Amino acid sequence: MAKPPKNAISPTRSEDYPEWYQQVIKGADLAENSDVRGCMVIKPWGYAIWENMQRRLDDMFKATGHENAYFPLFIPMSFLEKEAEHVEGFAKECAVVTHHRLVDNGQGGLMPDPSAKLEEPLIVRPTSETIIGATFARWVQSYRDLPILINQWANVVRWELRTRMFLRTAEFLWQEGHTVHATAEEAQAETMAILKLYADFAENTMAMPVIQGRKTAGERFPGAVDTLSIEAMMQDRKALQAGTSHFLGQNFAKAQEIKFQSESGELVHAWTTSWGVSTRLIGGLLMTHADDDGLVLPPKLAPAHVVILPIYKNDDQRGDVIAYCESLKAELESEHYDGAPVRVKLDDRDLRGGEKKWQWVKRGVPIRIEVGPRDIAEGKVAFSRRDLGGKPEFLERAGVVKEIAKTLETIQQTLFDRAVKLRDEATVEINSLEEFEKFFAADAPGGLAYCHFVDGPEMEAKLKKLKVTARCIPIDGDAESGECIFTGAASERRGVFARAY
Amino acid sequence: MAKPPKNAISPTRSEDYPEWYQQVIKGADLAENSDVRGCMVIKPWGYAIWENMQRRLDDMFKATGHENAYFPLFIPMSFLEKEAEHVEGFAKECAVVTHHRLVDNGQGGLMPDPSAKLEEPLIVRPTSETIIGATFARWVQSYRDLPILINQWANVVRWELRTRMFLRTAEFLWQEGHTVHATAEEAQAETMAILKLYADFAENTMAMPVIQGRKTAGERFPGAVDTLSIEAMMQDRKALQAGTSHFLGQNFAKAQEIKFQSESGELVHAWTTSWGVSTRLIGGLLMTHADDDGLVLPPKLAPAHVVILPIYKNDDQRGDVIAYCESLKAELESEHYDGAPVRVKLDDRDLRGGEKKWQWVKRGVPIRIEVGPRDIAEGKVAFSRRDLGGKPEFLERAGVVKEIAKTLETIQQTLFDRAVKLRDEATVEINSLEEFEKFFAADAPGGLAYCHFVDGPEMEAKLKKLKVTARCIPIDGDAESGECIFTGAASERRGVFARAY
Repeated sequence: MAKPPKNAISPTRSEDYPEWYQQVIKGADLAENSDVRGCMVIKPWGYAIWENMQRRLDDMFKATGHENAYFPLFIPMSFLEKEAEHVEGFAKECAVVTHHRLVDNGQGGLMPDPSAKLEEPLIVRPTSETIIGATFARWVQSYRDLPILINQWANVVRWELRTRMFLRTAEFLWQEGHTVHATAEEAQAETMAILKLYADFAENTMAMPVIQGRKTAGERFPGAVDTLSIEAMMQDRKALQAGTSHFLGQNFAKAQEIKFQSESGELVHAWTTSWGVSTRLIGGLLMTHADDDGLVLPPKLAPAHVVILPIYKNDDQRGDVIAYCESLKAELESEHYDGAPVRVKLDDRDLRGGEKKWQWVKRGVPIRIEVGPRDIAEGKVAFSRRDLGGKPEFLERAGVVKEIAKTLETIQQTLFDRAVKLRDEATVEINSLEEFEKFFAADAPGGLAYCHFVDGPEMEAKLKKLKVTARCIPIDGDAESGECIFTGAASERRGVFARAY
Repeated sequence: MAKPPKNAISPTRSEDYPEWYQQVIKGADLAENSDVRGCMVIKPWGYAIWENMQRRLDDMFKATGHENAYFPLFIPMSFLEKEAEHVEGFAKECAVVTHHRLVDNGQGGLMPDPSAKLEEPLIVRPTSETIIGATFARWVQSYRDLPILINQWANVVRWELRTRMFLRTAEFLWQEGHTVHATAEEAQAETMAILKLYADFAENTMAMPVIQGRKTAGERFPGAVDTLSIEAMMQDRKALQAGTSHFLGQNFAKAQEIKFQSESGELVHAWTTSWGVSTRLIGGLLMTHADDDGLVLPPKLAPAHVVILPIYKNDDQRGDVIAYCESLKAELESEHYDGAPVRVKLDDRDLRGGEKKWQWVKRGVPIRIEVGPRDIAEGKVAFSRRDLGGKPEFLERAGVVKEIAKTLETIQQTLFDRAVKLRDEATVEINSLEEFEKFFAADAPGGLAYCHFVDGPEMEAKLKKLKVTARCIPIDGDAESGECIFTGAASERRGVFARAY
């Protein structure tokens, strides 16, 4: 048996965090770069995590009255020209379709057919406010048609210069909610309700603590009146924007002419919102929980809760061990966790035990159970929790089965508590620019700084120099008088500042 | 109350079948044309049907060992050049991305940035054999890596000249399976297993009878050695290809260099398959079951099994009626059909009763239950089955609840039996070209003709003139000596011929 390395992932977090991130993805078989610049292939284990995220979010959206629909992949170029701020922020780097046919190039290859040039170029959607807004304009006639609460699961493309798997890719998968309301208040309430829904999902499903807040002007979605976001802290103490919910005011309604007859008979513009989370969450999940042995999955999102590894030396032993493992699997699967049967994988591949075990460690399965002939004789199993590491415990089989749901719940809670602790340790209140600069010095660990501030170009300029960003103004922050650390002006409330992905 | 029209859909099937199809889609609120040529918006009711199809198919794929993954939307143009037959069949009409940025055009608008022209154009995937094959070439090293059984849920784009919602759109949603095997036999077995899976889904979930068969050379997927398909017959007696499963031999493995070390140590090319069904199935579902009052949904795919419509004259009555309806809803939802709770909608919108009722008729909900004060007093409900039409029956509430699963099963079976009957009535054996021409004459009803044939250009030319196509050679057809009706040559087996979508 190959001697296990000191750590399954090389380099470790402290040695080279960005490279560690790539190696965890590789070790867990989550994704890989494709032959298309900036686009990744999401491999089965990574996609299964995304499916679990989708299933949960989809249930939450539907439980709050939203319905799924599907809108075109392409957006006519002229649609992007309508909302000035939106085009400024989005239309720049995108995939532009200009032809609808290929022909032989006369040299044994192909080329776009010059005679099949589109009259109007089409943009591969970077986000769908414009095309969905144009559709809503047809759907909305009267106040009786409102609210419209729609969600779409889709792929989008943004031509990013520097890409990193899951965190920033040219194509990514996401959901985008788009809603229309009769009043500003209702649209704002929707924006806030979705923020809370995202926070609930992040904390209770992903075990990833988040700060719920409002974006500063410079960080707002192009065209939005107000952008709310959830912000998480990764293990390198950088912040990750994990979901956004935008109150669009009447900006898009005016650009797309979404109008309705009000109860009093006037023709007025509607109020819209949009909101989304993406496959970026998988990057956030990784950087919240993974360790130097690879991925660590919170049970609620793990494609398998338990992996059973049979251990035997010959075919004689094999029969008994496999039979024992199969009955153990069936027993575990008859238990329920998080509203569904426990998910168990029995791995009987012809691989060396060490190699096989480390594959599952790197994939982050919450619980590993090894079973050999001696365990069977004693009615025991070798039981390992991925979140704890260390040597396996030898536990009574019956107890393991009986306690499985409780154990999974404990793991889910442990991961959350650990992430909260890490974040809290990296969180400070800062009251002067000097302290702020020291906290974010190149050789300092950094973290989350709560500071008084006044939003504006002066602050933005200083932040840019330090490569620090205003993450958000927490919505549950207490009002507190103070002085902006950047300008000295009077401030009412602290914001959160951090380096960010 | 508005007097209901004789039929909810105008025109009827016999008056104008193609227009009836569009009007059923509109009446059921399934989809609409978008602002992008040939692309549709799938509305919530249509998308919910697609989600039910997806859920069922996905379970079936996973139960047979397949895993989901996700591959890039874009395909480098050079990838399409590699497989000659494939490019011939596919690369012609497609969306070509040539630029990655927009800039101001100096006239207040936008244009593709000439300085951001891609070195190599990208094609929006019309199907993913080439890009997935290139990935598989990296994944496959040894016979131990095989088989690879992957499925992808995705959008694809084919620049169709004439489009029709669901049946033929520029962008559509589908699943595409892609598998790699060590031997031809295993790949052929997979191709056949998927054909059976599709037929099972079509008949037992969609209640749509299908013929399982093998395509003639002219109807094969470009680059495939063998294409299997399921063929359904629509109510206008035209055939619809509802799903295909391709044995690709080593064609794509050679083009994409998918090679592996065999057990005996040789480096050999693998054998691949691909298979898919799409949102086209929704068009097939519609044309199998819908009638002149609109959509008729088989219970297994209906977003709602039962809709409850409360009827009251004033607020006094309202309280009692709604309470009764809500408790009825809860009782129905505690019953199970097809492995899950019965799906019930209570529609208390402020709309006139007739309008409301006809909306649900047109949407095809299998069961409608109307409840008014008199029904409550008698412990009854007004019960209507969408598949039967006619006036409601007044049934005991308790009995309706107790029998609900059985009733839904009966509806599912009734729809299937009805479709089988219609198909069988339109199916003939034809033994001469004269008969054949008569059967497919412009003013004849047409249908499915089982004929002896010899595949080849002579047959193709005659079929083209008649606008008839060879649908498939049924795999369960008996061997039977005969004469090709087109050429007189000896034939071993009959094929199915029909006009087709």
